[in-house]
Amino acid sequence: MSDVIEPPEDARHPTVREEEVRAGTVDLLGAIAYGALTAYERLAQDGAGAPTLADKVTLATMSGRQVHHLERVRDRLAELGADLMGAMEPFHRAFDDFHAHTRPKDWLEGLMWVYVGSGFADDFYAEVAVTVDPATRALVEDVLSDTRHDDFVVEHVRAGIEADPRVAGRLALWGRRLVGEALSQAQRVAVDRVGLTALLMGAEGVDVVAVNKTFSRLVGHHAARMRRLGLQP
Amino acid sequence: MSDVIEPPEDARHPTVREEEVRAGTVDLLGAIAYGALTAYERLAQDGAGAPTLADKVTLATMSGRQVHHLERVRDRLAELGADLMGAMEPFHRAFDDFHAHTRPKDWLEGLMWVYVGSGFADDFYAEVAVTVDPATRALVEDVLSDTRHDDFVVEHVRAGIEADPRVAGRLALWGRRLVGEALSQAQRVAVDRVGLTALLMGAEGVDVVAVNKTFSRLVGHHAARMRRLGLQP
Repeated sequence: MSDVIEPPEDARHPTVREEEVRAGTVDLLGAIAYGALTAYERLAQDGAGAPTLADKVTLATMSGRQVHHLERVRDRLAELGADLMGAMEPFHRAFDDFHAHTRPKDWLEGLMWVYVGSGFADDFYAEVAVTVDPATRALVEDVLSDTRHDDFVVEHVRAGIEADPRVAGRLALWGRRLVGEALSQAQRVAVDRVGLTALLMGAEGVDVVAVNKTFSRLVGHHAARMRRLGLQP
Repeated sequence: MSDVIEPPEDARHPTVREEEVRAGTVDLLGAIAYGALTAYERLAQDGAGAPTLADKVTLATMSGRQVHHLERVRDRLAELGADLMGAMEPFHRAFDDFHAHTRPKDWLEGLMWVYVGSGFADDFYAEVAVTVDPATRALVEDVLSDTRHDDFVVEHVRAGIEADPRVAGRLALWGRRLVGEALSQAQRVAVDRVGLTALLMGAEGVDVVAVNKTFSRLVGHHAARMRRLGLQP
């Protein structure tokens, strides 16, 4: 069901490139939606172990934002004539595996999971969203710019390291594990979902060198986040 | 911190009744906020066991609504010069006990928990919200009228009973348990929180007969919900 797209209004036959962009747009929205759903679940679980009620409320608002993103993406998919469930389906495995391989062991690892994992995913979406239609692009940019809780995470992780400097080494390793797993799943998605990769690459087609450049940028952004947390990338 | 209210702008000394209404308003908002937070947590837990991904998405949007309510109430409390954490504090015990004593054993019990438990709480807030200031009242009415997911619950519970009529007896008992526990916690709150009860009673003061009438209405609404689910109240 994921690729059922309404024909364009002028009813001319869409070009192969147009078909690719449409399929890629549905893929992008499906990935964002499923990513938001699973991030919501992770945040809800982490919130249950929050050290204070105030932290619990913050985690609840963070997970509420993920639901809001999911709802907006679902509505955009409906406008494109695509079904949310079908659009999310191709990304179950990548996100489910990512979650299965990155279970936070405590509150600080959970906070880092959100910041590092969602940050990576958002950067990936931003790379892909360059070629999509203006309405989808505006939605994606709006969702990605919702970084209002980054400061909360950074402050808490920095305070946690200050309170017990020994955790820094473990959290640095945890950050590397998160990005390693994220890269591995992103590679899988890039290989499996031609439409998505076509968005990423533009009209020139898939190119290993260009994919690699994209991934280098993603790693660079990740390193910046780790430094902001006070951790060795 | 729950009762820190800004002095009225005209700086005349507020009457005892005005003080009562202010304290009661903060109590009401605190109860709604903590109720929303705990309902969000329950829905997030139930969502993890949803039978389909579509059901999981619906539960996520339901829990997202609870977070939205929490945020709106927090903002209103801030306008009243009151702190969210302090306002919620007097209601920890009632809600935590309610949750501890009503753990759904399966998906259908979880859905009923939402519909019956939140329905009861909303009716209770509606009884109390009669005396509050217009801005708070508008907010509470808006939050309470957010019943967009009732149909989802009713359809699923009815379908569950149709698929296996033997569950009807167990679910009817479950409904009675839910309302019994809700009444018990509401009684506790009515006794403990004079400001809240003063809202409920109006200027004439607390009156056992009037409290009892209120509770009779709450039970009546509960019975209507049970019948809508196809269950013996």
